[in-house]
Parts: sequence; structure tokens; C-alpha cells
Amino acid sequence: MTDKLTDRLIARIDELKNPSVVGLDTSFDYLPDDMKKPCKTLEDAAKAITEFNYRLIDKTFDIIPAVKVQVAYYEMYGVEGLKAFENTVRYAREKGLVVIGDVKRNDIGSTASCYSKAYLGSIKVNDNVFSPFPCDYITVNGYLGEDGIKPFVEDVVNFDKGIFVLVKPSNPSSGQLQNKKFEDGNTLFESMGKLVEQWGEPTIGKYGYSAVGAVVGATHPREAEILRQLMPHTLFLVPGYGAQGGTANDLKVCFDDNHRGAIVNSSRGIITAYKKSHAGMKFDDAARAAAIDMQQDLYKAIYC
Amino acid sequence: MTDKLTDRLIARIDELKNPSVVGLDTSFDYLPDDMKKPCKTLEDAAKAITEFNYRLIDKTFDIIPAVKVQVAYYEMYGVEGLKAFENTVRYAREKGLVVIGDVKRNDIGSTASCYSKAYLGSIKVNDNVFSPFPCDYITVNGYLGEDGIKPFVEDVVNFDKGIFVLVKPSNPSSGQLQNKKFEDGNTLFESMGKLVEQWGEPTIGKYGYSAVGAVVGATHPREAEILRQLMPHTLFLVPGYGAQGGTANDLKVCFDDNHRGAIVNSSRGIITAYKKSHAGMKFDDAARAAAIDMQQDLYKAIYC
Repeated sequence: MTDKLTDRLIARIDELKNPSVVGLDTSFDYLPDDMKKPCKTLEDAAKAITEFNYRLIDKTFDIIPAVKVQVAYYEMYGVEGLKAFENTVRYAREKGLVVIGDVKRNDIGSTASCYSKAYLGSIKVNDNVFSPFPCDYITVNGYLGEDGIKPFVEDVVNFDKGIFVLVKPSNPSSGQLQNKKFEDGNTLFESMGKLVEQWGEPTIGKYGYSAVGAVVGATHPREAEILRQLMPHTLFLVPGYGAQGGTANDLKVCFDDNHRGAIVNSSRGIITAYKKSHAGMKFDDAARAAAIDMQQDLYKAIYC
Repeated sequence: MTDKLTDRLIARIDELKNPSVVGLDTSFDYLPDDMKKPCKTLEDAAKAITEFNYRLIDKTFDIIPAVKVQVAYYEMYGVEGLKAFENTVRYAREKGLVVIGDVKRNDIGSTASCYSKAYLGSIKVNDNVFSPFPCDYITVNGYLGEDGIKPFVEDVVNFDKGIFVLVKPSNPSSGQLQNKKFEDGNTLFESMGKLVEQWGEPTIGKYGYSAVGAVVGATHPREAEILRQLMPHTLFLVPGYGAQGGTANDLKVCFDDNHRGAIVNSSRGIITAYKKSHAGMKFDDAARAAAIDMQQDLYKAIYC
């Protein structure tokens, strides 16, 4: 039996001792002035963003296991932006990176299956088969319950893919509904977490983690600790490290005793490092330096 | 003071005595064989879908107030599909229709503002301003709470747009989480509904309805009745009529005493009418006939 996607991701994290993910939330504003200046159209902006991403990937693919591409930052440049998204996804996979499409899609079953075809599965036009935006994992929102999640899980199984369901995202107001307690004693985020653990059960791999993960923010360490207990077979995608305020110490509760169980995203902290922590360096060199800093910061908290 | 979007939509519904929305969930499979047969690529499929939509719009724009374009059905054809989405949105608006982009976007604040720029507001590339997918309304998912909704509401105000927040969608498992009761006695869908009513307050227009609407399925009449009471200033976008099993009688609880307060979507029931209720007719004529049937069905239940 060949290893499944989540097993391969965990093996690569073990090998690099690096559970970090570089978030390509590439706003045009993040680009260096010399790349921005000549741009006039959405097409110009999208091409500059693509080039920026390629150079970031070239300088980091050997030291990180995965990238997360936030589609909102591409959709805002329209159709041209989505070309940049597609090209970035394809390029990162060619370089051997695991690609998480951060798309937070959700809908009723028949419509969810369209989204799933777009990002995980494939679509037929007469006899020809296409995979329009071929991600490894995508993020999804579970507010609609099981029949909105099922089509994704089917493609996860059929195409060896994965999903991360929003359970306790990193934003400040996430608790407004998610931390409210139901009559049965569970909060909404705990109820969502239990469902996610259940949805993933048939896909548990050799390290004990399933292909149905959960988004759990580094900014909510108490909730993360509860969820780690409730969801022993669920891989966490952890946003909120760095620019949003989450520290390596905050998020170490997401990991198990074998230093596994989570991948940690940093976006602005890496891709705009040339403006901040590594000012004065070229943007791609600065990103590599910031990615190494992040690896060491996480390593100390999680492995030591 | 000029009328705001929601006022204009309600006025047009009053004029036509027709609160219905044609859902352009245009899967390639829905096209007549002669349009499908020559297609080999995603580009071919997307162009055929666009032509199908244009002909549907041409045959219905004078008798309906609005269309809802479900982006998942376009995303599954990749970048080319999103061109078809953009072209459909622009064409429908040129014909005077109100356009609802059914995108169910959601994210943390900074990222939600990217989505909002894509569909409601605008984006700058140096000095040039673009509106990539210029919808009137979009649907959004409120699982992340207020700071994920705020950026949309800001653009609603600044650009005279609207949103519909998922409260009680039409799918069978929507109750799995949404119908669970919190300790304070409210279900999740009621809590979401109260927040939506609150978020819309500053935008209430001359008919008493705000620009922050709610998605409330025709398949859940009991819940819809509760929500109509809880959310007196919230316009409902009602999916689930027709193909999904909701009837005109089920959804009349969504309307107020002035026959206002909701718009009702039908997708497959209209756009595939040439295969079912109006078999034998050309697809666009069949769609018009089905749209007239729907208007009369709703009229009897709501106005009489």
C-alpha cells in the first residue's frame, strides 16, 4: 500500500523537522516597488504576483513542507487573479510542495460537489477530463452540516486529497457564536470538532491522522488544547502565528507527544519579511531567512 | 435621497408582482445536446454556458426582478468558467436585472475584505480602479462572527450593495448544528438570525428592509416562521423551492402583510424546464414558460 497524502505530509514534516506552511496571501501591495510600478491592469498585477510567488517558492521549497494559497487574494484581481492562483498552485506542486488551497468553500451537497470538482477532483467536458485548480488540501466551512461536507470527503477518498474544516479560526470574533455552549454542554466549536473527527475516521493513516483536518487558530490556545483532546486523529491547520499574535508557545498544545498533529501557517511574516524582520534584504532572500527563523522558533517550542 | 439597492429591488418586485429569482446554476450537463456536442475544452464549455445564460436572460429579464448566479457551477470550469461567471453577471446587470452572486464567501476580517473587493467593492492597481465581478448582492457565511462580516457591510454601505448571510439554508443536514439549542434558549440559527438583523440595522430602507439579508430555505417552514418574527427588517433569500421540494405554501411565512420580505430562487426548475415541465420546447422558451408558472404559483400563495 502506498502512503496517503496526510502520511506523506507528516513524513516530510518529520524529515525537515518543520511543521510550517508559508501562506501565499499575496496582495499586490506586498510586492516591491519595482515590481508594482509598471503595472496598470489586473493582468499586469496578476502576472507580477505570479512572478513574486514563483521566486518565493524557488527560495523556500527545499526547507518547508507546504504552502497555503489564500484564494481571496487572487479573486480580488478577477479572472486574471485566478490564473495567478492556478499557476501558483501548479508551480508549487511541481516543486514537490504540498498545496493547501485556502478557499473556505461551503454549500448544499449538489453545489459542494461542484467546488470539490474544481479543487480536489476533476470535471469532464464530453470525453476530456480536467482538474482546474489542482490543490492537495482545501479548507471548507461546515456550517451547513454533513451533507455539505460529504462531496468533499468522497473526493478526498477517491483522489487521495484532504480538507481542513473550520473549527476554531484565529479571528477575534470567532467566539461570538463558536464559544457559545449548547444545552448538551458542548460549545459550537466542540460540536463542530467532534463532527470533523467523525468525518475523518475512515481515512486515518499510518501516523494516526485522517485526511479530514481542522482549522484551529494559534490565537486561541485554551480552545486548541480542548480540541486536541477531543480530536486525537485530526490534523490541525494552525493560522494566527506571527502577524496575528499567536506564539510558538501558544500553539504547542496542538501537537502530540511525537511532535505531530499540526501544521502552522505564517503569511505576512514570511512574504513581507523584506519590509520588516529582514529589512534591507531582497524579498525572496528575506522570505527564506524568515522561514528559517520560523522553523527554529517552532522547533524549540515543539521538539525540545 | 435616491433609493437604495434593496428599495429598488422591492419596488421592482412590487411592480412585477413577482418575488422570484432565476438561479443560473448552469452546469454543462444542463445544456441541450447540440450546444454540448462540439465542446472539447474548458473554454468551449464555458463559452457554451455563457451563450446559454445570455439566451435565458434575454427571454426572462422583462418578467423577473433578479438572477442568482451560483459561482460553484463556474469555478468547476476553472479560469474559463470564471470568465463565464463574470460575463453572465455583467450581461444580466446590463439588462437591468439585480444580480445575486451566490458565493458563500467567509474569512477573517483582512481576507474577507479581499472577497468584498472582488464582488462588491473595487480594487486598485496603482491609479486604476477595477470591479472584477460586479454583483449587486452576494451570499456570505457568518460562522466566523462579526469581524468576518464587517468588511462586507462596509462595502454594502459605501458601494450601495447588499449581502445575504446564511442563516438556515435549504439542505437536509442544515439542522445538524443550526437547530441545536444554546444554553440561552436560542438555537444556532436563531442566534445567527439575531446577529444578521443587528448587522443590517444601519441600512434599513424605505420599505423597512435592510441591505443585510438572510438565506432561509423553503424546505424549513417552521424555522422560517420563527425567523420572520425575529428578523422583521431582514430580507430573506429563499432557496429550496421546486426541485428541492419546497412549495409556495411552505414559503409564504417568509413574507410580511404587504407581500414583501423575501425573494424566492428556482434554478433547475427554470433552466432545465425544457427537459421536464416544458419538454418539447426550446430551452429558452421553456425557461420563460417555467418562470411565468413560478410567478403565478407564488402570486396565488403570497398575494391572494
